[in-house]
Amino acid sequence: MTETAKAPTGRRPDPDPDERRPLDFETSPTELLRAGSGFELGAVDPGSKPGYSGAKADGKVTLEAMDPVLDELQERLFAASRSGGEDRILLILQGMDTSGKGGIVRHVIGAADPQGIHHHAFKAPTPEEREHDFLWRVERQLPGRGIIGVFDRSHYEDVLVQRVRGLAPEEEIERRYGAIREFEEKLARSGTHVLKVMLHISKEEQRERLLERLDRPDKHWKFSPGDIDERALWDDYQRAYETAIRRTDTDSAPWFVVPADRKWYARIAVQQLLIDVLHGIDPQWPPAAFDVDEQRARLLASD
Amino acid sequence: MTETAKAPTGRRPDPDPDERRPLDFETSPTELLRAGSGFELGAVDPGSKPGYSGAKADGKVTLEAMDPVLDELQERLFAASRSGGEDRILLILQGMDTSGKGGIVRHVIGAADPQGIHHHAFKAPTPEEREHDFLWRVERQLPGRGIIGVFDRSHYEDVLVQRVRGLAPEEEIERRYGAIREFEEKLARSGTHVLKVMLHISKEEQRERLLERLDRPDKHWKFSPGDIDERALWDDYQRAYETAIRRTDTDSAPWFVVPADRKWYARIAVQQLLIDVLHGIDPQWPPAAFDVDEQRARLLASD
Repeated sequence: MTETAKAPTGRRPDPDPDERRPLDFETSPTELLRAGSGFELGAVDPGSKPGYSGAKADGKVTLEAMDPVLDELQERLFAASRSGGEDRILLILQGMDTSGKGGIVRHVIGAADPQGIHHHAFKAPTPEEREHDFLWRVERQLPGRGIIGVFDRSHYEDVLVQRVRGLAPEEEIERRYGAIREFEEKLARSGTHVLKVMLHISKEEQRERLLERLDRPDKHWKFSPGDIDERALWDDYQRAYETAIRRTDTDSAPWFVVPADRKWYARIAVQQLLIDVLHGIDPQWPPAAFDVDEQRARLLASD
Repeated sequence: MTETAKAPTGRRPDPDPDERRPLDFETSPTELLRAGSGFELGAVDPGSKPGYSGAKADGKVTLEAMDPVLDELQERLFAASRSGGEDRILLILQGMDTSGKGGIVRHVIGAADPQGIHHHAFKAPTPEEREHDFLWRVERQLPGRGIIGVFDRSHYEDVLVQRVRGLAPEEEIERRYGAIREFEEKLARSGTHVLKVMLHISKEEQRERLLERLDRPDKHWKFSPGDIDERALWDDYQRAYETAIRRTDTDSAPWFVVPADRKWYARIAVQQLLIDVLHGIDPQWPPAAFDVDEQRARLLASD
């Protein structure tokens, strides 16, 4: 077999998917944005753009240039699963209201083939969900082999809003940190690459974004008066995030805190985090499970 | 309120979403490709491009030009559902192996926000699924309010492969046509706009596409020797499609047969079918369910 694998034809230009660092990213967000167990949220400037020397216009070029890289790696991941590969990815997006979770889904994940994506947005638990352990509803949305799962909010709400609002007793919150570590460790052992992202915005930036939702009639549906009640608990939420991240950042399920006051930076950073995970998996087109020449002859013999 | 709704910011240019006919589509595929009860599959030329005067290069321009239209209409559909709108869409894709179902998902549906899409590919039924009525597994994948559901294969396999392969008795196949009509009628009554598409390729074109899968190592995973066995039953499948379409084409769940030897035509045709359904729904940004000025004052008073 002398043919070389070609990238699938698409509507975008085709940079080399093995090209690891995109334009202008001098150091990977994977190295720079990892939280770690001694993590302090106050040390992260929501307006910064770690590792990236370019400006907004460059960021848009980077995002678009890396789209086909993500796209091909995702297809390879999917293809590899068809011949027994167990790898899959779970991207967990957390962040305050307006931090840009939806924008990540639209602008980063949107570049990949919908056939390889499983997206789920977690809302307040339903009565049925409340009758089960907090991880029950999460289990039901886990990505299958070869799939990139994307959670817009997640089981972390059960140690964030539930803590801040006092919806669960303190001992129960404590228990959950451990339960989450074990759960994610189990996922990692069965081939799930867990990538946890907190989109970190400033309180000032949130005000601007909420104002925009109030100013634009096509954004009204995204606003709820309750958003301002949540905002009043800003400091409590920041503490709850810091604690949750410290307690659940592990090597098999690491946290990355992404400065998100500049939407364009947050998008290329998450895109690169995801590409780095895919490069770590290094999925390959699976070899033919049949004799290619024999099948070609059969096909040509058919009318 | 004097502000006017602006299109959501995206990475694409923004044509007017109310622009109904794109470049070069002289007559809508919705008018031209509808099957109807007297439908004859043999009368549809898989190599034709009904209603479209342009060539392949124009088709690519049309596809990209209409992406943001689909994108905005989809977002409006989703937004409307947040304030009680019941509308949703179910796009059912059927066609022989290599007819391009996956390409439609990647290149047409891929333009929309993943948050508003529910995609499911139906495979051979699992043992659990076989213990239930054939519609059971379909019910579980129906799109929620505001969502565009996309089925890659569907309950139609139960009157196609099951008929051709004799996997169900003839009376049972007969029963299923009626059950499908009732099922889809019920969906339509509860706000689901059912759009059924058969991608129609010629046997010669299938040979070329299967050969390509054999020639390209990055496509081997898409090939199975069983594909050639199915191909040997080509005429039986064509008859089964024709019968299924005749028996289940209704005004509330119409069938469209899309010539698909030219992938680019099939894509812009399905894109336009979907846009026409969305225009029929005409989803609007929901009005604020709160006093905008009051909330703005609250927000500005917060620190």
